[in-house]
This record gives sequence, structure tokens and C-alpha cells, in this order.
Amino acid sequence: MTHFRYLSFLTDYGLEDGFVAACKGVGARIAPHADIIDVTHLVPRGDVRRGAAVLAQTVPYLPPAVHVAVVDPGVGTSRRGVAVAAGNSVFVGPDNGLLSWAVTAAGGAARAFSLTNRELWLEKVTATFHGRDIFMPVAAHLATDAELASAGTEIDVADLVMLPAPERLIRDCVAYGEVLTVDRFGNVQLTITTSDAAEIGVKPGGSVLVGVGHRQLTVPYRDTFGTVASGELVAYADSAGLVSIAVNGGDAAGRLGLPPGARVSIAAVPPTIRP
Amino acid sequence: MTHFRYLSFLTDYGLEDGFVAACKGVGARIAPHADIIDVTHLVPRGDVRRGAAVLAQTVPYLPPAVHVAVVDPGVGTSRRGVAVAAGNSVFVGPDNGLLSWAVTAAGGAARAFSLTNRELWLEKVTATFHGRDIFMPVAAHLATDAELASAGTEIDVADLVMLPAPERLIRDCVAYGEVLTVDRFGNVQLTITTSDAAEIGVKPGGSVLVGVGHRQLTVPYRDTFGTVASGELVAYADSAGLVSIAVNGGDAAGRLGLPPGARVSIAAVPPTIRP
Amino acid sequence: MTHFRYLSFLTDYGLEDGFVAACKGVGARIAPHADIIDVTHLVPRGDVRRGAAVLAQTVPYLPPAVHVAVVDPGVGTSRRGVAVAAGNSVFVGPDNGLLSWAVTAAGGAARAFSLTNRELWLEKVTATFHGRDIFMPVAAHLATDAELASAGTEIDVADLVMLPAPERLIRDCVAYGEVLTVDRFGNVQLTITTSDAAEIGVKPGGSVLVGVGHRQLTVPYRDTFGTVASGELVAYADSAGLVSIAVNGGDAAGRLGLPPGARVSIAAVPPTIRP
Repeated sequence: MTHFRYLSFLTDYGLEDGFVAACKGVGARIAPHADIIDVTHLVPRGDVRRGAAVLAQTVPYLPPAVHVAVVDPGVGTSRRGVAVAAGNSVFVGPDNGLLSWAVTAAGGAARAFSLTNRELWLEKVTATFHGRDIFMPVAAHLATDAELASAGTEIDVADLVMLPAPERLIRDCVAYGEVLTVDRFGNVQLTITTSDAAEIGVKPGGSVLVGVGHRQLTVPYRDTFGTVASGELVAYADSAGLVSIAVNGGDAAGRLGLPPGARVSIAAVPPTIRP
Repeated sequence: MTHFRYLSFLTDYGLEDGFVAACKGVGARIAPHADIIDVTHLVPRGDVRRGAAVLAQTVPYLPPAVHVAVVDPGVGTSRRGVAVAAGNSVFVGPDNGLLSWAVTAAGGAARAFSLTNRELWLEKVTATFHGRDIFMPVAAHLATDAELASAGTEIDVADLVMLPAPERLIRDCVAYGEVLTVDRFGNVQLTITTSDAAEIGVKPGGSVLVGVGHRQLTVPYRDTFGTVASGELVAYADSAGLVSIAVNGGDAAGRLGLPPGARVSIAAVPPTIRP
Repeated sequence: MTHFRYLSFLTDYGLEDGFVAACKGVGARIAPHADIIDVTHLVPRGDVRRGAAVLAQTVPYLPPAVHVAVVDPGVGTSRRGVAVAAGNSVFVGPDNGLLSWAVTAAGGAARAFSLTNRELWLEKVTATFHGRDIFMPVAAHLATDAELASAGTEIDVADLVMLPAPERLIRDCVAYGEVLTVDRFGNVQLTITTSDAAEIGVKPGGSVLVGVGHRQLTVPYRDTFGTVASGELVAYADSAGLVSIAVNGGDAAGRLGLPPGARVSIAAVPPTIRP
């Protein structure tokens, strides 16, 4: 019986070395029927939070799969590996929070297992490359004919390591949040949702007061960054349902000095009352 | 009925985020039979001309496919999306010229359709991610069982946005052109074809007078850059049938200060007449 | 008859251009049944030694395949192309040493052929893109229905170009070697094996005296870099069975000034004798 046609794969291994390929080779040997969809391998080294954000925003568009994710600064130490069933998929990786936002996005963890069954691992396991030696072979077996419960000891889903949910708060008609991610284009994605924005009266076509430290900027709020002139700042409802800030054709994160984690607030610009 | 076994995919989305993977996931859900060949996702942001050049030089070597290309600085504005039949393939993307050189290389547009049929799109379409929400799902449907004509309203192929053909001109035994692309190695690819070169008497084994601004350089013209000493300049007939300038083991674009679009002329070096 | 389900592919072509895609398209046309596993395309330009090291460390984890590798500073000159049978696989690429370490790792060359049969090439061969025009089409034919012997003239396996084996030597309880590779994380992989280390008394849990030029550093020797504090140097048995030096969460190559090829020695730190 074939459980899953697809594996997805996210790491911080980079593309310069053969690390990703070695994992894919291991997967192909065990699950030759499966296709592997690369999510990204360019998560900044050890940046669990960034990996979690990319995974959570991508998985909803992937077919049912065994999702393998490895951003694992604690490899070889006592942190455990887990396989977590959520929605139509299974998530495999280190239990360090990396999987948590995607699992939540998939509907929450139904069951979880600690990867203790060495029969699903490579015969020889190194201390520094669990992606190749443990996570990918376990995932490939689960995609092929192994039952989820064969991965190891069942654990309480409440014991899974969760990253704190991205910070966001509405108070007195101001939405407070932080920078969730900065993409390749320098677009700044906030933790504030477009529903939050709507709730405080920020709607496409109007303007938004963006607070960054002691600065306040008035920025148009639009459906897309392409509607303002080149080089202009714009806030918009992004493709993940979050408020983002961009410079059309430019680098908003650089211009505003907004790295991931920076605190940002937004509020509606009150319409000028004509006397 | 399966129309196409392959999709190809070119974007400026980069590889750091999950954007490419989200598109592939959408494609896999709709067209699970199809294989996706990545052309590149590292087109410089919004560089339609560069995307067009890479696409046009790559597509002739790909199998018949639905070629999806998204370099789309106007996403979310009024520019339309199109599906264009040319040769054995279908090209899907924004109607901003990105597809035009590849369509020409494939034999020219036979029919073209504006992507107005929302039934082939994702149910929820965001303003900033048409690659995921419109172009890929339309392409995947066309690769599976949708007729091309179902993509939307037919449009006159003469109305498709065309990039101006790369500039090149022969006058008085001099070929004038510009830098079409600079590759990873710093090799400078001119718009001047090797046939142009032959026409003005520039043939492998001889030398060529390269004009850049007020400078004139005498450079050997060879079959390949590997035939000159390391660090030496060489002009050669490149793998796309164009004249390129390289430094063997070095960066010609950097050394000569030749970015894409820079004007360059070449002429044969007259053989020295022995008295 | 299908000979191989998989092709693997390693180059220095980069990912910005359509070079890799053109090769894959050629492969897909000839061998539509085959899956291509990318090893890496980010080998530094012309760095045959680096390509050889990545290939040799990755291939043992790949399924039986035709492995295509192209790092080829001599493209278009007289260096020959070869197809080499080793273990369960076939290696195709330039005969410049690139394949040699992987062939050795696969059990050594059983038979070798010079790629002289133009019937397996693309019809039109350029002087600068043998990956697309020769190596990939030959490999795809070999993966499909061509016998290995059809690739061209058989050559003596003793005549294949070999890179010198990575330098390593044990003398007077000191292991001498060099830096084999530096990975994305700045981890420094030595040519010294973990067996060499064990032979001179260097075992996980102890410390190791690392000699670099005139400097000597005492570094803990562990199973993994995750066991030392963030920012600390650590030597460890890496995932390829070699001794590596890392900074937990940092860049060891940068901190120690250790590029590939730099000479390094290691020795056990004698246990302090309590009086």
C-alpha cells in the first residue's frame, strides 16, 4: 500500500554541497514511487523561526505529503525527532518548534510519535546528519508502506515543542505586531493579518499609519505594491493573508531598517474632516 | 486526455522563500501526471528582458511543454495574463513581453488567449501572487484536460506585447549590437549572431576588433574560450549561436565594464599584408 | 530495456541561467522515463577538485544511476569525454579527474569508454556546452537503451585521469592532512579520517591538538558540534567519516583562515597526569 505520492523537503543545508542530494538519494532508494517537492534549502542556518514561517505558508498549497523539515541546530544532542500527523499530511523533523506553525495551519496535531524505531533509519547513523540518516529514511518509509505508529513511541501532542505564535495584538484601534519574514525582494511581512487590519478600519484604497520605533509613516494601503509609483512605499494585503510593506521595485526592509522580529504597529489614518 | 507531460517554470521568485514550491504544489494537485522542469528562478527581480532572453535560449532544448514564466513587475495591475500557442508548446504568463522572444524562437504565436476564465484559477486569488493563483493553475489545467481555448477570450496575436528584438545591425563591414546577457561566469553574450560575424569576415581562428565606447580591443576569435591562456580575453561563437566575449577563467563583463544593454561593435582585423 | 531509472547531475553552471534546464530538457527528450537528481550546480567555476569531493561524498547515497558531472575548464579543447562503469553505476563527464574520487568510492573503474560515438550526441555540437550537447545526451541514451560499449572507443581504465588522492599521513602519533572542503556553514572538512584519528588516540570525548601553520589549538573532539557552547570551536567525526572542525553556530573556516588545500595536523592531547 502506498501512503503518500509526495514528500516535501525544507532545510538550511544550502545548495552548494551534496547534502540535499544525499537525502534525496536515500528517499529515492526507499520510496522510488514518490516525488519530492523542494520547499527551500536556503533557510538561514539554524533559523528555526524562519523555517517554521516558510513551511507554514507553503504547506497549504502542497498536495498531501510527508513533509520533511530539518533546521536543526541541536542535531546530535538530546532533542528528539518526531513524526506528527496533521490534516492529510505527516510532518517529520526535529521537535524544536520548526514544524509547529505548519502543523497548526494543517489543523493541529492529531497524533505524534518520537522517532525511536531504528529499523526505519539508515543502518549507520552519524551524529551530524540526521536529515540523511534518520528524517528522510523515516519519511520515505512512512510514504511507502510503514504505518505512522511504527515510527516509534507515541507521545502526547501537548508535549510537542511549539514556537510562540507570532505576536499580534489589537488595542485602541491600533494593531501591534512584528516582522514575521523578509522575502527575497525586501518585502516586509508583518504578523498582523488583513482581518486585523480590517477590524481597525484599515482597508485597501485608504492609508495606514505605520509605527516603527519612534517614527510614524503614512503609507497607502493597497491590494498590491504595483499600484504605487516605482520607489514608493506601500502597505498591502499579501498572498498569505498578512499585511506586508513594500517599496515598489525596491527594498522596504532595507529602507525602513526592519529585520524579522522588529516591532511594528499600524493604524488607520483618520479621514480629514472637511469643515 | 493528457495534453502535456511537462511544464517548465521560470520566475524571479528566488529560492529563499516557499514561493516556487507553492506554485509547484498547486501544479501537482491539478496535474499530478506532469513533471516540472525549472528553467531558473533567479531572474533579477522584475528584469523582463533578462527573463525573456533566458527563456528563449532554453526552450528550444526542452520537450514540448506548457511553459510558465512569471517576471511580473505589474502583478495586480491591469496588465493581462495570456496563454499563447507556438510550435509544439503553450506559453503562459503575463503579457509584458516576457514570453515574446521564446514564442518567436518557437515559430511565432499561432493563437493567443487572455486568461479570463476564472474556473481555471485558484478559488481565492490574491493581488500579488498570480504565479500561484492564476498562471500555474491555468497551465496545469492546460497540461491535463483543458482545451487551450478554455483559458479565456481569444485575442489577436498581433496584439501581444513584444519586447523589441535585440538590436543588431551590419554597416560597412562592422556589426553593431549590444550586450544581451551576462552569465554566471561573467561571459558577455552579444546580440550579434555568429552568422553576422561570418558575413563581415570574422571567422574562428582570426582576430576581431571589439569596440566598446571609445575603446577598441583586438581579441582572438575562437571556437571556445578554453583555447586562450588563462586570464586572456577571447571572443567566440557561443552555445546559442551568438558572439560572446570571455576571459578564460575570469570575468569579462567586470573587466570590460559591460552590463546588459551596453553597446558593442565588432569588425574583422584585416590580415597584415606582408610586403 | 531500461538500464537506469535515475540520472544524477553535478555542474558548475550555476542556477541563474538556463544551462541546467537545457541539459535536463535534452535528457527528458531522450530518456523520458528517467528522474534526474541534482547533486549541486554551485561548484565554484572550474573547481574540479571541489566537484570531485562533493560527487564522491554524495554518490554512495544515491540509487544506481548514470551520474553526469561537468566541471570542465577545458571544454572544447582536446580533453576527452568518458563513460566509466563502476559499481552499479555509470559515470559520464570530462576525463579531467572530476569523476575519479567517486569512481574510486564506487569500487573503482570496471570499464571505460571515450565518448567518440557521435550518434549519441546532439546533432549540432557547440564548442562550449558539452554538458548539453554531449554529456547529457550520451548519459540519457545509456540510461535508456544504449549499451555502455556504444559510447565510443574502449580505453584502458589505467589511463583515466585521476586526481591525486587527498593528502593524509600518520607519523609519530600525529595525523597530517589538508582541508578537503569547506561547506556552506564554514565547517572545515579535513582529509584525515576518523579511523586515522582513532589510530593516534583521538577519540570522541577527549581533546585534540590542531596544528595550523605555526599555531596550535586545543579543541574538544566530539560526536557533533552541537555539544559545545555557541561560538566554541569543536572537532568532530563528520557525516562522511572524516574529521571536521566547526564553530557551533559560526564559521570555522573564516575564523581559522582555512581554505581548501590548507595543511592541518591533529594529535591527541595527552591526559594531564595527576601527581
